[in-house]
Amino acid sequence: MTASPFDHPFLSGLVGDDEIAPYFSAEADIRAMLSFEAALARAEAAHGLIPGEAARKIAEACAGFSPDLASLRAATAKDGVVVPDLVKQLRAEVGEEAGKNLHLGATSQDVIDTSLMIRLKAVVFLFAGRLSAVLVALDGLDRQFGGNRLMGHTRMQAAIAISVSDRLNTWRAPLATYRDRLTEQSFPVQFGGAAGTLDKLGPQAVTVRASLAQELGLSDIRQWQSARLPIADIAGLFASISGSLGKMGQDIALLAEIGGEIEISGGGTSSAMAHKQNPVAAEVLVSLARFNATALSGIHQSLVHEQERSGAAWTLEWLLLPQMTMATAASLRLAGDLIGNIKRLGTA
Amino acid sequence: MTASPFDHPFLSGLVGDDEIAPYFSAEADIRAMLSFEAALARAEAAHGLIPGEAARKIAEACAGFSPDLASLRAATAKDGVVVPDLVKQLRAEVGEEAGKNLHLGATSQDVIDTSLMIRLKAVVFLFAGRLSAVLVALDGLDRQFGGNRLMGHTRMQAAIAISVSDRLNTWRAPLATYRDRLTEQSFPVQFGGAAGTLDKLGPQAVTVRASLAQELGLSDIRQWQSARLPIADIAGLFASISGSLGKMGQDIALLAEIGGEIEISGGGTSSAMAHKQNPVAAEVLVSLARFNATALSGIHQSLVHEQERSGAAWTLEWLLLPQMTMATAASLRLAGDLIGNIKRLGTA
Amino acid sequence: MTASPFDHPFLSGLVGDDEIAPYFSAEADIRAMLSFEAALARAEAAHGLIPGEAARKIAEACAGFSPDLASLRAATAKDGVVVPDLVKQLRAEVGEEAGKNLHLGATSQDVIDTSLMIRLKAVVFLFAGRLSAVLVALDGLDRQFGGNRLMGHTRMQAAIAISVSDRLNTWRAPLATYRDRLTEQSFPVQFGGAAGTLDKLGPQAVTVRASLAQELGLSDIRQWQSARLPIADIAGLFASISGSLGKMGQDIALLAEIGGEIEISGGGTSSAMAHKQNPVAAEVLVSLARFNATALSGIHQSLVHEQERSGAAWTLEWLLLPQMTMATAASLRLAGDLIGNIKRLGTA
Amino acid sequence: MTASPFDHPFLSGLVGDDEIAPYFSAEADIRAMLSFEAALARAEAAHGLIPGEAARKIAEACAGFSPDLASLRAATAKDGVVVPDLVKQLRAEVGEEAGKNLHLGATSQDVIDTSLMIRLKAVVFLFAGRLSAVLVALDGLDRQFGGNRLMGHTRMQAAIAISVSDRLNTWRAPLATYRDRLTEQSFPVQFGGAAGTLDKLGPQAVTVRASLAQELGLSDIRQWQSARLPIADIAGLFASISGSLGKMGQDIALLAEIGGEIEISGGGTSSAMAHKQNPVAAEVLVSLARFNATALSGIHQSLVHEQERSGAAWTLEWLLLPQMTMATAASLRLAGDLIGNIKRLGTA
Repeated sequence: MTASPFDHPFLSGLVGDDEIAPYFSAEADIRAMLSFEAALARAEAAHGLIPGEAARKIAEACAGFSPDLASLRAATAKDGVVVPDLVKQLRAEVGEEAGKNLHLGATSQDVIDTSLMIRLKAVVFLFAGRLSAVLVALDGLDRQFGGNRLMGHTRMQAAIAISVSDRLNTWRAPLATYRDRLTEQSFPVQFGGAAGTLDKLGPQAVTVRASLAQELGLSDIRQWQSARLPIADIAGLFASISGSLGKMGQDIALLAEIGGEIEISGGGTSSAMAHKQNPVAAEVLVSLARFNATALSGIHQSLVHEQERSGAAWTLEWLLLPQMTMATAASLRLAGDLIGNIKRLGTA
Repeated sequence: MTASPFDHPFLSGLVGDDEIAPYFSAEADIRAMLSFEAALARAEAAHGLIPGEAARKIAEACAGFSPDLASLRAATAKDGVVVPDLVKQLRAEVGEEAGKNLHLGATSQDVIDTSLMIRLKAVVFLFAGRLSAVLVALDGLDRQFGGNRLMGHTRMQAAIAISVSDRLNTWRAPLATYRDRLTEQSFPVQFGGAAGTLDKLGPQAVTVRASLAQELGLSDIRQWQSARLPIADIAGLFASISGSLGKMGQDIALLAEIGGEIEISGGGTSSAMAHKQNPVAAEVLVSLARFNATALSGIHQSLVHEQERSGAAWTLEWLLLPQMTMATAASLRLAGDLIGNIKRLGTA
Repeated sequence: MTASPFDHPFLSGLVGDDEIAPYFSAEADIRAMLSFEAALARAEAAHGLIPGEAARKIAEACAGFSPDLASLRAATAKDGVVVPDLVKQLRAEVGEEAGKNLHLGATSQDVIDTSLMIRLKAVVFLFAGRLSAVLVALDGLDRQFGGNRLMGHTRMQAAIAISVSDRLNTWRAPLATYRDRLTEQSFPVQFGGAAGTLDKLGPQAVTVRASLAQELGLSDIRQWQSARLPIADIAGLFASISGSLGKMGQDIALLAEIGGEIEISGGGTSSAMAHKQNPVAAEVLVSLARFNATALSGIHQSLVHEQERSGAAWTLEWLLLPQMTMATAASLRLAGDLIGNIKRLGTA
Repeated sequence: MTASPFDHPFLSGLVGDDEIAPYFSAEADIRAMLSFEAALARAEAAHGLIPGEAARKIAEACAGFSPDLASLRAATAKDGVVVPDLVKQLRAEVGEEAGKNLHLGATSQDVIDTSLMIRLKAVVFLFAGRLSAVLVALDGLDRQFGGNRLMGHTRMQAAIAISVSDRLNTWRAPLATYRDRLTEQSFPVQFGGAAGTLDKLGPQAVTVRASLAQELGLSDIRQWQSARLPIADIAGLFASISGSLGKMGQDIALLAEIGGEIEISGGGTSSAMAHKQNPVAAEVLVSLARFNATALSGIHQSLVHEQERSGAAWTLEWLLLPQMTMATAASLRLAGDLIGNIKRLGTA
């Protein structure tokens, strides 16, 4: 039941990521969705829209609630989204009184998009750390081998000699930019209600949204339920990261193929040829770069998000963005491994 | 650990497929890979390349073998492919003597690509049945409502009245073509050895391959390990199917939005608006069409498959084709459901 | 005014094609559109729908007519299609009486899609010839160098030695398939009228369409104005051809980079390094493959072609298919040149 | 000879752009390339690398030089780039003495990439103006109709009533972001020499580059000849702009189809149905959005830019970025026209 190698029992050894994958588990999604409902109740109580007691009960229930997954699955099949059934189950949990105050003024998209942002924020923090580690490892290579000679190649031909530092600088430059961008990336709360107008919250709508954002550690912007730039921006950044790491992977694979200027340990074995040391990680960096380049197109198709909410465009994002995140995670992991396995670069 | 909605505990209710998903489980893949090894041993024994006794032992072991998945995962991380470790585990199982005769002359790609073809053949058989059912259901709609009037729309404007039959004919025409194509689709064995030359099998290489193909019920063609047209063809067919169903979905979603000419049951509920009946399946047909249109690009990128085997291009296929298959499965399933839920089409 | 390198004064030297480009000139399109109108008049006269005299006049006018291009451009800006103004200009040319019988029962899409098919049919005939020439040239290489040794490479590592014939067979296999497919490719007339129902032609609609198809040398199928499989099929075939040629280009570029096993003449010079011989054609084969792989995605997006005619999906095809054709043309041209420039392959 | 509708004699009426197209003419490219050579000579003279007299002569020649286009075309066919022949022609023009000082330390990519940045900078300045005009026009709609009622739609179903202002705010929000991004977009000089190391300029390399950047009004960064983030960033921004305008187009097309809540003038006419007013511009906004979403994938594929310069990846950019720019230009133009043609929005 694992069509995606990112989720696959053994292929995930290659392209999965044990640290990042949990953020895309159903459990993590549910936990984040429940934290949205709890934070919303607290924010609405703080502004007098619902009783404090109801908010307390809701928050308490959300902290420990384990929904019936089979029911969620059946309902998602029918509703296209998990939220109506999740809210229904949660209402049963908190009791009739508090239940009326649950999810007040919110819609499915508020819950799902905000859950995504909560998790992407955590993931991007880890990505920034990985990028820093990759940069440190490249600095290490530079200290060790930077002065070595490397044959520069242009248009698939030996050109003139360059230094290992020259090549490393080209690998490093975009990565340093990405680290900054990851750090500065904004993760907005999504809160718009049925049709984006927060119609049920009256004059306090905007202050409730601000409190909600603060509760969740997200930035507070106007609802973006049909203006999907935040998604396109993150997807573009991820594709850029894996793209630049794919360039590094391609360079290393070519070094390994041409031979003489690189020594790598940890390569793959072949079922047919015992003598081979395949530069597996370098190749997979190229695969992941091309995967994200491919998927990015679909994310941009989903910018054509009609009216107040498009089930078609939104569902398309779900099919692409989590896996783009996983591809980026695997790229960063493999890049770190690969650099660590370089035993020599260039010639003295 | 479910970045892909096709594999996801609750999202799979919407875009998963209980009948097709098992073909992409690790278990199904392993079973098909073992059937390759067993069939290879039998074919090689039949042509005197290995002892009959060894082939018998290998086939017997393959029938019941359950590999250590943790070991497969760790090895895939290192080797980029699961086969070297699977063969190693299987060699330990069959014993030293038969072990020498296992996997003789084969390479990882032979095992993996052939496993894929074995499973795709079964899947495509099911798809042809589903397409037939969709066509029958459309015929049913035609009998019931074909004479009804429908406003024809061109360029997002009411044009002239057409009949429901006219619209149904446009939906049906490509589907009938796809059913034929699915039925005629060829599923070739992949068998080339280390570098595609079957170098270890000597003059009997081609007859062994023919026997192997026959054993497995696949067609016998020269190895295609770096000429990936069979993959591009199947992916193109899948994307065409989901594309045409996406057109039907978009049409139905527009009928539902404009109103008056369609009645659908079974629509989705909203967490914010109790009065709504969302045409969820129609929308998701559009999502799946756009997903496959997106992914097809990556499959075609992987036609640039360098030299005798490209780890980069091959791994890219893995990231895309199984999910394209799942998207097609879900499209066919949802199309059937959706047509079944149409209670009226057009006006009398 | 030449955003596309295929049309560009000097870049077309690299990626243009003097033989195929004329089929995508405005003149060729207009000529083909006029031949549609003439053939339609003749077919309608043959079936008694319009007077023979009117058909004669229309055909005569179409043979020599040169429309006012500035007017066509201005009208296309407003109407989204060139046909209403073209027909208006042509009506003025043929006079009031025959003018009433011009374009009878047809719509813009009939004219434009049929014009495309007329031209693609001619182009594909030339492509089949080019593919044959490429295959002959590869046969020639095989006769000269087939027995030479070539280092087989898998996963960017030297694997085992193969023969030049082995590599050539891998290049040839898909090309032979494509030649057959090009030869068998069907080019259907498009004829549906306002909303695809040929409502103005009454009971003779289908026979008129058959005559029209015959007049134009196209195949006769039901209108496909919103079921765009014919477009997706041709685009898929073109992308497959350039994809397989891109694989050959990548292989040759790698041979040139690694050195020792290939001698190519006619390579490019560098503005900075006089000693270099860049394998320009080999690289550009990769670019064109990736371009077509990219564009194919958009063609498949346009399968989601809503209702009886989608201006959005249809215009998207125009932005992609002609250039996919040009990319395929350039691929075939460059492949021929490149093979012709191979002076040695493998080592004796 | 006009495979691209952006360049086409009559289709350019629909998707071309008379203001932006000239920046992608061969003439504009040559002019910008000559301005690079002139600025380089001046910068090198200022730092004592070449005689001032030579720089003066070079700059003078560049100001008036008209190269032989047929020669450029033939040379591009062979070299893959226009620069070697352009420099050769220019050397003949400036004479032997100054000719030695021409193009000193530069390579083809420096000239071509910098020419692109010079022109994109001008184009983006115009885009920012157009975006401002679109925003002003939307503000105007808001003043006129903001208080009107509009039926909000989610998942292709009427949801609850919103105001016209609500819808307009969703259209405006990303556009305001894009205007800021366009204004802040950096356009870097590309200057690296043969293999990116400015090897011929010695210790003054970096200061020469800084002077060159200043001469050309570009920002000064390390060469990015194989780290193509600047290209991906601009392409991503363009695709985002056309994507958001495509969403607006889709919304307007749906308003036009559903009817009652919008009045648009200036729609297209039909060759078959005189009564129709097709929302052509709205539809084409969707086409252009999907075109750019498609093309963006190829730009990201070209991030895998191997070694010091990849002919394959670089040529792929040429096939995509100019047309993405044109698509964005047409989007902005059509969006302005379309908003201007809205005579009523919502109901009082």
